[in-house]
Amino acid sequence: MTEAPGDFLAGLAAIVGPERVLHDAAGMAPFLTDWRGRFTGRARAVVLPGSSAEVAAVVAACAVARVPVVPQGGRTGLVLGSVPDAGGAAVVLSLRRLNRIRHVDPFNRTMLVEAGCILQDIQEAAASAGMLFPLSLAAEGSCTIGGNLSTNAGGTAVLRYGNTRELCLGLEVVTAQGQVWDGLRGLRKDNTGYDLRDLFIGAEGTLGVITAAVLKLHPQPKAALTAMVALDSPQRALDLLVLLQERCGAALTGFELMSALCLRLVAAHFPQLPRPFAAPHPQYALVELSSSESAAHAAALMEASIGAALASSLARDAVLASSTAQSVGLWKVRESISPAQAAAGKNIKHDISLPLSAIPAFIARTDAALEAAFPGCQVVCFGHLGDGNLHYNVAPPEGEGHEAFLLRQDAVNRIVHDSVLASHGSISAEHGIGALKREELARVKPAVELDMMRAIKAALDPLGIMNPGKIL
Amino acid sequence: MTEAPGDFLAGLAAIVGPERVLHDAAGMAPFLTDWRGRFTGRARAVVLPGSSAEVAAVVAACAVARVPVVPQGGRTGLVLGSVPDAGGAAVVLSLRRLNRIRHVDPFNRTMLVEAGCILQDIQEAAASAGMLFPLSLAAEGSCTIGGNLSTNAGGTAVLRYGNTRELCLGLEVVTAQGQVWDGLRGLRKDNTGYDLRDLFIGAEGTLGVITAAVLKLHPQPKAALTAMVALDSPQRALDLLVLLQERCGAALTGFELMSALCLRLVAAHFPQLPRPFAAPHPQYALVELSSSESAAHAAALMEASIGAALASSLARDAVLASSTAQSVGLWKVRESISPAQAAAGKNIKHDISLPLSAIPAFIARTDAALEAAFPGCQVVCFGHLGDGNLHYNVAPPEGEGHEAFLLRQDAVNRIVHDSVLASHGSISAEHGIGALKREELARVKPAVELDMMRAIKAALDPLGIMNPGKIL
Repeated sequence: MTEAPGDFLAGLAAIVGPERVLHDAAGMAPFLTDWRGRFTGRARAVVLPGSSAEVAAVVAACAVARVPVVPQGGRTGLVLGSVPDAGGAAVVLSLRRLNRIRHVDPFNRTMLVEAGCILQDIQEAAASAGMLFPLSLAAEGSCTIGGNLSTNAGGTAVLRYGNTRELCLGLEVVTAQGQVWDGLRGLRKDNTGYDLRDLFIGAEGTLGVITAAVLKLHPQPKAALTAMVALDSPQRALDLLVLLQERCGAALTGFELMSALCLRLVAAHFPQLPRPFAAPHPQYALVELSSSESAAHAAALMEASIGAALASSLARDAVLASSTAQSVGLWKVRESISPAQAAAGKNIKHDISLPLSAIPAFIARTDAALEAAFPGCQVVCFGHLGDGNLHYNVAPPEGEGHEAFLLRQDAVNRIVHDSVLASHGSISAEHGIGALKREELARVKPAVELDMMRAIKAALDPLGIMNPGKIL
Repeated sequence: MTEAPGDFLAGLAAIVGPERVLHDAAGMAPFLTDWRGRFTGRARAVVLPGSSAEVAAVVAACAVARVPVVPQGGRTGLVLGSVPDAGGAAVVLSLRRLNRIRHVDPFNRTMLVEAGCILQDIQEAAASAGMLFPLSLAAEGSCTIGGNLSTNAGGTAVLRYGNTRELCLGLEVVTAQGQVWDGLRGLRKDNTGYDLRDLFIGAEGTLGVITAAVLKLHPQPKAALTAMVALDSPQRALDLLVLLQERCGAALTGFELMSALCLRLVAAHFPQLPRPFAAPHPQYALVELSSSESAAHAAALMEASIGAALASSLARDAVLASSTAQSVGLWKVRESISPAQAAAGKNIKHDISLPLSAIPAFIARTDAALEAAFPGCQVVCFGHLGDGNLHYNVAPPEGEGHEAFLLRQDAVNRIVHDSVLASHGSISAEHGIGALKREELARVKPAVELDMMRAIKAALDPLGIMNPGKIL
């Protein structure tokens, strides 16, 4: 028996209320376009459930009607993972209204949150309770924890605290059959069968819908201090990283690499920002140390460690922030690289990761290959060196138009990604696959791995209704 | 076409060499009995491959012949996960000969090891390279890393460094179809599809065979120091844990809880060990602080922190180790609880975990329920409080025989596990499920979770040949 289309929408309205089922173009529009504005999909409806039970009922109705479901959080993803395709058959399932912080447990250092909570609200709730939720990334004012979990988001604190995966102890998930799985455990050890939690984390909504999570909180450091260090080369940056890890252990909470070109771009487009060094240097590292004891302890540790790097000529020069304001200023330089690049014009971006030991050779080899193929092209290379994660962006040669250069994107991607593969790296470090990198994933992944992924997808979502066209 | 049994064994011999296929009773015996000697299974043969390719060929041959495969490492598991059942149809696949440390990468802080490497050999190789592989547990001289990964082993360093899962970046796995999946990535960020790594970790060999792994190494602390603190109650131990986390952050590398009875048992059976306190106290915490800076730093931090706990009357008394030898002595007291219990006679053991905040009420409630059901029974409660992991063991009342009390095991288990469930805890914190807790797992897990596990098992091992009868 085939259901009439009107019946289907009426069924959804009966679950969430008629005003929570949008199906007019104007109402749906804000949910259909991706964050960077590169793609606008179509949908049958946008549904805004208010509870896990409502999510389950909506998914169950979609399963009966064989309607694709596209889960959506803050819609800040960069790989077209949370917008529907152009087909128009899908229902967009917005988790926005599931935005309660259900519980904070100070002795267990956990927080129980719903998927639609904004990351920044979670950070603030943790701080109000005297604790730290360390996940931090550019979109934190808009992105939701459900999206962070579904993409296993990274950010600037991974070196010390891990990816989102490492910050989650338990999940509540609505399965592709519309059942609620209560895996909301706040346990640090639990060996009772397969690790379903980590299977749903990073699955980009293709296996089920994350509706709530138990997050791990950390003690708040008493102080954090930064320094900018000038270096000869990426290898020297690695040497500095090793030195700091040996001397500072877990007190090293940030280590970012930036090339000379990155700082030139920032200086050109944001002249009001601090210029740490009078003369240019080939590479720079932004170092952050945190102390659970005191600001004086952080400062002494920084002075001794950076002092040792200067004394042994490992570093060329260094600027140590002597206040929180100065620390913020140095971070601001790092955070302004992307905006400065955007102001300079469009470029071809790569979010890659590598074994740390492979990074110096990777940069040299890939820079050379790009120069050979596109003489004069400009590589803007920066990123979370401590995690092996580079944002390796390629801009056109001086004088060549940015739009024209974008037409060469496939050839540029191929050079960069093949070089990544040669170094046993990853073509998506922290952004995920979505629809954007799906074909590339199929090209670079071993067949046996793709086969296992497909088998798991078929096992948990046999009707193939969960976010189709993403990842696989 | 059915293969003759002789052909099957000849096929295995052609893969690994005839001397690597054991099928006589004497040759197989050491592979068939579990570590605690409680169960002896039967097998068709024991096979000892020497490479991942040989493992793959053996599994492929077993798949063709529909012969169950029981992967085995150091055979030190506590839940009958690595020995075959009584049926005699299975092949035991010993990974012992895959024992090479293939590569140490100091800049990436990783080590590439084969599954049959003994944990202690890995610890020593890391130390030789000036780094730390923090996984540490009682069986480390015999257990293999393949077994540690397959059971997601815990141990004494989880509070700071996490379970085995958190210490692994990549895996090589032979699938149930006898294919080799090369997932040996040494990446700290990689969001390219489903997290197969964490699915195989903790799967106890029921989805495939882990043959190699990329392990995460850490900087070696410069110093570690311990203290024993006397406390009024488990709640006071939690208060102390929070105080130490706030003051010491990641420098807190161990926090173990022991009841008065635990120390009485150790004193009675190991009179040569130190007795930290002249008079008894209700509870004790063993605290370990590590410093990446110096022994003096660790000592100052310990003194200030424990001093604060004493000044606020949070703690009753404390003994601070002033040397490595004294630190080792205090750890020895903690490690002697299990041997002391064994010397006192058999008891009914539980390896459970709870949200930390639930532990004081759990202990009070469960102690009372057991006393009501078995008046005079003795609860020996100790464990890794920092991880919420208790070893909650129950011994008979004075005068009652230990063997007789063991007959009440099901009733005792039921009281303890139901209390665990009421506190949203786990019935297996770090030992896994194996064959021993399989029925109990089916009783306590939500149906929707069991269904997903079964679907994944069927998807990755459709013939059901991988370690049947374990977990599911």
